[in-house]
Amino acid sequence: MNRRDFVSGVLVSGGLSPLLALAGAEASQARPATPPPAKILLFDTFGTVVDWRSSVAAEGERIGRAKGVTGVDWAAFADAWRAGYGPSMNRVRRGELPWTKLDVLHRMVLDQLLVTFKIDGWSEAEKVDFNRVWHRLNPWPDAVEGLTRLKSRFIIAPLSNGNLSLLTEMGKHAKLPWDTIMSTELVKHYKPDRETYLMAADFFDVQPSDLMMVAAHEGDLDAAKALGLKTAFVYRPNEYGPARVPKRVPPGKFDYNTLDFKELATQLGV
Amino acid sequence: MNRRDFVSGVLVSGGLSPLLALAGAEASQARPATPPPAKILLFDTFGTVVDWRSSVAAEGERIGRAKGVTGVDWAAFADAWRAGYGPSMNRVRRGELPWTKLDVLHRMVLDQLLVTFKIDGWSEAEKVDFNRVWHRLNPWPDAVEGLTRLKSRFIIAPLSNGNLSLLTEMGKHAKLPWDTIMSTELVKHYKPDRETYLMAADFFDVQPSDLMMVAAHEGDLDAAKALGLKTAFVYRPNEYGPARVPKRVPPGKFDYNTLDFKELATQLGV
Repeated sequence: MNRRDFVSGVLVSGGLSPLLALAGAEASQARPATPPPAKILLFDTFGTVVDWRSSVAAEGERIGRAKGVTGVDWAAFADAWRAGYGPSMNRVRRGELPWTKLDVLHRMVLDQLLVTFKIDGWSEAEKVDFNRVWHRLNPWPDAVEGLTRLKSRFIIAPLSNGNLSLLTEMGKHAKLPWDTIMSTELVKHYKPDRETYLMAADFFDVQPSDLMMVAAHEGDLDAAKALGLKTAFVYRPNEYGPARVPKRVPPGKFDYNTLDFKELATQLGV
Repeated sequence: MNRRDFVSGVLVSGGLSPLLALAGAEASQARPATPPPAKILLFDTFGTVVDWRSSVAAEGERIGRAKGVTGVDWAAFADAWRAGYGPSMNRVRRGELPWTKLDVLHRMVLDQLLVTFKIDGWSEAEKVDFNRVWHRLNPWPDAVEGLTRLKSRFIIAPLSNGNLSLLTEMGKHAKLPWDTIMSTELVKHYKPDRETYLMAADFFDVQPSDLMMVAAHEGDLDAAKALGLKTAFVYRPNEYGPARVPKRVPPGKFDYNTLDFKELATQLGV
């Protein structure tokens, strides 16, 4: 993909200067059949494809009710669980822990939270099962239709810190039509380490510019962009609940800027 | 899975002694809801899921015609290409080559065969494209329907020496509904090394007995069985062409013994 294709991408996304628009128009006249802007679309999952917060809270409610637990704010529990994920990954990065699957990090955080939230009397089997709620997250309403359309033209895969079994079982649960699973477990690094973004280029013998990172989080896209990947922002206003609605990213910062996967599919011409 | 489940498997597959049949009948009385015989089904691909011989020969014919190549027996070419695969893997096993993707081994064999078959005048781009025929193999007629049924109850994945991109693109080409891709590239070993069969147990935190290897080749199943995996034989009489029809495996040697993936699905109750 060359500079002109990139310009076409910006054009479609709506964020463009008059000069770039002119360059884009020239490019499309010169080459009627525009090559696709990437070969492989890589999706952040937690928050981008699936709604972790409401999924975890709903399972907590259900299990809590069955166990007679009262007075727990399960949405707050979900937020705290998710918030524990960054610091626990950093323990791996700093070498305090060897390479550790996300499932195991999730369990370490869960064990702390059961104390913090004063929940006791759960059996080991119940803890194991609840920890696997991260394998059973529900998709955003547009995800399956959008991915199915995108799959018709691109290789689609999650690129996530979820371990391979987590992402595989999440895909099965949520009926996500992945072509393959790019868990960062395969390179024993966590995003945003560079090894994670470049893994698909190695596996598929393509350039970083043949990859497009799709995410609801600017940091993820910034890291991908710095390594030469294409980028698509998807706005997920409900990820963190009503009290913490994120801002939309300004147009033009990333190659594509969309409200959901169906809009991304339309912008990518499928 | 215990001895009784194993017996049930044999029972369903049709190869059983009267004593085993009695044990199976007792087991089904004692436990009306039989647990599934495995959680994850792992499929050999070349020859088991896809018909490499006719696919490679057809593409050879097509490209040969376009290039004005005459007098080449493309089925023999396909056989020779496939036959070169074992020796080239052994060069990696003996340490003569570092870890090498199957794509690269295929290309080394192709370059030799173009000389042997006296084919010249192909551009580098044409050789690269023809080498990727292994990413575009066509499925046996029952494969997609059988896998789709099996996917409803089991995690399904190829377990193949094909590299990750080869298996991913083959899945896309042939519409194989894999849940994930277990390329042996992920552990940098080739089948039948033990690391390849045990990889899914590590990724999914399950026992080898929770895995079932599905293959048309006895050696593959023997290696899996020796490590504690369940095994299912699928008879593919046309894999090597009309002059070399393989024998059926005797009933009872493996847990399941089937004629195609639809029969396997039926035997596994889906």
